[in-house]
Amino acid sequence: MENVFRISMLLDFYGQLLTDRQYEILDLYCNNDYSLAEIAELLKISRQGVYDNIKRGEAMLCRLEEKLGLVGKFSEQKARAKEILDMIERIDASKMSGEDRARIEKIRQGIEEILEA
Amino acid sequence: MENVFRISMLLDFYGQLLTDRQYEILDLYCNNDYSLAEIAELLKISRQGVYDNIKRGEAMLCRLEEKLGLVGKFSEQKARAKEILDMIERIDASKMSGEDRARIEKIRQGIEEILEA
Repeated sequence: MENVFRISMLLDFYGQLLTDRQYEILDLYCNNDYSLAEIAELLKISRQGVYDNIKRGEAMLCRLEEKLGLVGKFSEQKARAKEILDMIERIDASKMSGEDRARIEKIRQGIEEILEA
Repeated sequence: MENVFRISMLLDFYGQLLTDRQYEILDLYCNNDYSLAEIAELLKISRQGVYDNIKRGEAMLCRLEEKLGLVGKFSEQKARAKEILDMIERIDASKMSGEDRARIEKIRQGIEEILEA
């Protein structure tokens, strides 16, 4: 199966285009660390049924990212923001005016918001 | 019909999930400013056929944004970046060291990349 972290990201972006069942099972598997056996017991379906839903859901999510590339696009934005944050950390604000120091602090907060979104 | 600028944005994000025909027609209509009559003539289909494709394509794009909200998510990131850029413009870099001035310049460039993506 695909890398769980990657599927979790794809699920966050495109999960609403899956069937409710596929979403529920992938969410338990990727975000709540349930095993296939545990999911099967919880939902009262076969382990094979769980596996098939995971495979089909994963394939759908990967196909969506192949077509749309929005996880990639968003990740690039975050990588840029991370570089900017590193650059901000290296600025020596000690000789700045109080106003400029406050501006630098607001810029840092804005970048952190971009990173957390 | 929906606002052309909005549909153009949705098309940029989700267009690859439309049929080729819907994509082609919406691209001509929203991004190349073709009229329905011009598209009908170009593609040798009826004006009603063009209209139906536009309506169905628009409905699909709106439904995708309703479910996924990624255009909204991306727009919020850009709004944050725009605020940061405004803040950078107001910093007085004249008393900074050459290194810090270069850092501020790199931060500005990074933010502009986020805005242009």
